[in-house]
Amino acid sequence: MAGYSPKDFQALRWHDATPAFRDGTDTPRAYLERCLETIAAREPAVQAWVVRNEAGARDAADSSTARWRAGRPLSPIDGMPVGIKDLLETRDMPTGMGCAGYKGNFPKRDNAAVTALREAGAVVLGKTVTTELGGAHPGPTTNPFDVRRTPGGSSSGSAAAVAARMVPAAIGTQVGGSIIRPAAYCGNVALKPSQGAINRGERQATSQSTHGVHAGCIEDMWLVAMAIASRVGGDPGRAPLSGPAAPPVPRRPERLVVMETEGWAELDAASKAAFAALLARLEAAGITLVRRGDHPLAERFEQGITDARAISGAITGWENRWNTRNLLEQDPDGISARAKAVLARAEAMTVADYQAALAMREEAQARHARIAPLADAVIALACPGPAPVFDAESARPTGDVAFNAPSSMLFAPVVTVPLLAVDGMPVGVQLMGQPGQDAGTAALARWLLDSEK
Amino acid sequence: MAGYSPKDFQALRWHDATPAFRDGTDTPRAYLERCLETIAAREPAVQAWVVRNEAGARDAADSSTARWRAGRPLSPIDGMPVGIKDLLETRDMPTGMGCAGYKGNFPKRDNAAVTALREAGAVVLGKTVTTELGGAHPGPTTNPFDVRRTPGGSSSGSAAAVAARMVPAAIGTQVGGSIIRPAAYCGNVALKPSQGAINRGERQATSQSTHGVHAGCIEDMWLVAMAIASRVGGDPGRAPLSGPAAPPVPRRPERLVVMETEGWAELDAASKAAFAALLARLEAAGITLVRRGDHPLAERFEQGITDARAISGAITGWENRWNTRNLLEQDPDGISARAKAVLARAEAMTVADYQAALAMREEAQARHARIAPLADAVIALACPGPAPVFDAESARPTGDVAFNAPSSMLFAPVVTVPLLAVDGMPVGVQLMGQPGQDAGTAALARWLLDSEK
Repeated sequence: MAGYSPKDFQALRWHDATPAFRDGTDTPRAYLERCLETIAAREPAVQAWVVRNEAGARDAADSSTARWRAGRPLSPIDGMPVGIKDLLETRDMPTGMGCAGYKGNFPKRDNAAVTALREAGAVVLGKTVTTELGGAHPGPTTNPFDVRRTPGGSSSGSAAAVAARMVPAAIGTQVGGSIIRPAAYCGNVALKPSQGAINRGERQATSQSTHGVHAGCIEDMWLVAMAIASRVGGDPGRAPLSGPAAPPVPRRPERLVVMETEGWAELDAASKAAFAALLARLEAAGITLVRRGDHPLAERFEQGITDARAISGAITGWENRWNTRNLLEQDPDGISARAKAVLARAEAMTVADYQAALAMREEAQARHARIAPLADAVIALACPGPAPVFDAESARPTGDVAFNAPSSMLFAPVVTVPLLAVDGMPVGVQLMGQPGQDAGTAALARWLLDSEK
Repeated sequence: MAGYSPKDFQALRWHDATPAFRDGTDTPRAYLERCLETIAAREPAVQAWVVRNEAGARDAADSSTARWRAGRPLSPIDGMPVGIKDLLETRDMPTGMGCAGYKGNFPKRDNAAVTALREAGAVVLGKTVTTELGGAHPGPTTNPFDVRRTPGGSSSGSAAAVAARMVPAAIGTQVGGSIIRPAAYCGNVALKPSQGAINRGERQATSQSTHGVHAGCIEDMWLVAMAIASRVGGDPGRAPLSGPAAPPVPRRPERLVVMETEGWAELDAASKAAFAALLARLEAAGITLVRRGDHPLAERFEQGITDARAISGAITGWENRWNTRNLLEQDPDGISARAKAVLARAEAMTVADYQAALAMREEAQARHARIAPLADAVIALACPGPAPVFDAESARPTGDVAFNAPSSMLFAPVVTVPLLAVDGMPVGVQLMGQPGQDAGTAALARWLLDSEK
């Protein structure tokens, strides 16, 4: 029986460990060894990792130890052990994409974000499990708080590795809900940045995917994101993540728009009650809530995201079409039946269908821009209740994207924070800002997390 | 001694060969065999190809022959032999990027544009020579009109293969001047589309690069571009090339803005005179020319592109930085000294420097938008005079991007047409439209070409 409590759970943290690296009472190598002990204990059940380069990690941690000792760390995350979702290329480990068709794929180069992490001194410990090609077909990872349940997807391994205290942070990616939902199911903090704010390197093939960060606290989340963006910037031609180098100072929201999403109608009663109780606490603290019925612009905004799942799915399916077709033609058994069904739907689309989906997305973005004057941010559940018990036959074995597709489609920054427990399992709450307001959104989320502790 | 004349040169054409495929007096297989004969005769001097899949091409041509015979071609370019610049991945041939570091690279998948060409029935004959990574370091290709001269770059092989009548069309890419300049040096027609209008597939790493088409005539150029865009659309999230399925009908311009670019001051007298004579013919035909001195908006536009070379180079250098660094770390001898120098300049940049370059690009784009009411299009030389004699020690052995960096930076569609000869060598003239006006620009270019024949 899971007995998770957001107030009691102690996440693994990095930023407050570093003073001891300076004074020599702790070292990045010792920190890494503690991570490896946790992995040895928990990995058999959690199965967060595809592959680890432990020898390389130890070498990197030793180098970091020497830099801290000399008082010359490369960055605040110098020595931090991190997991990398197995969709991103790494020069020292293969990249399997959770997909049989990529067996043996070993391009021997680093994704831009991985390049930046290494430049910042971070210890790239291993590759974390992804669902197949970031889609619906699940990997073996389980939820660290209940082995019967999914950790969420597609960043399954990154979410679980952080929640199981194996590493203080891990890189995920999101095109529909793949960073925020698994983080919310696993009790992590996570950032899904503004579209384009973190350089995706070779992974530019879809128009609404982002790299993001899972961590145990806002501070570590922000330090990792800025370590990347300050070194390799954003996507080609896009504004990189900007804000303070140090973690954003907590900021109390004055007003929040409450977002339902198309998931609300399908949500279980206990999760609705837990979210309602949170909103009541916020109102009691003097924060004004703007619900869809309170303002016609809030209502129009909700209507604009009513079909977010379908619009996101159509756009992404189309954009992945030629690549998945190539994969299938190389090896008819290289992708799952689920991925074949996604491809078939995409191949039934025309260029005009795709343009129509883009137009719907742009309209939803315009409606989001129009609610900017109403509040400091949008608040919503970050997942549709607690992580479901794993069901291989389900259409969505890692959960539903209903609460996450809107922010993906809107190119908007989201921070999820672990504020709720339902059925003894984590349920995250998200704050969504306007595109470019990543730092401000993180500041609000930090206040929310502090106020609920 | 080169004796090229735009009026006399007969380019290889496709679209007017297809009626004979329908009535059986010719076949795509026979067309291909004629191309292979030309290649056998001219390739030893021209060196346009890295690799060809002639067996695969013959099979594809036979299949196409059967489809035309049955009256069911897949598209107007069913059976057309095409060359693919060796920066694009092809599942049946390695992808060498003109770079030692990519030796043995064989990802066995097709770029989105290649996928589309195959779906349209085109015969993917082979990979054409590119400069190293699309940069300054040249390959072995020579100019088909004078073996001592460069064909231009980086789409050297695609330009030369079309000019040598080896294939009716070939795919190139441009990030600075890599489609338009070699086409202009080689007497081809070419389209550098609006940014994002043709899906670049895995090649999304730079924000101002495009795929484009080299051909012998506007009709073939357009049919190839639309065959791609109607099947795989534009870049993720971008509007695909749109317009008539059939080649745009010639349209006479009323007014044209004359663009100098930073190349004008360095241009040879003969090229200046040839361009001036063309402008005089256009004025005599009743077309109004708007020179930079004629309107303050035209002057501001010119000032906005004064540093186009440097701005384009900085943006692209930065965007390629992590990837080139990876390559170098895999193999210190994997890239040329020229590429190493580009990397060193990029690595001296900060994220803030990159943001400043993006801001300058956006300002230039705004100035371009403001001249839209002044004329139907912009006219300029498409290359800095005739192709230079090859000089391995030159900083720019495949020529200067001065006349091409503006359109790349402006995300604007360009069509080059072979209107001039200087020193017995081709010198192209470009028409540049507003972003999205690819079809209209092609219609104007077709009129210009017809009026000069």
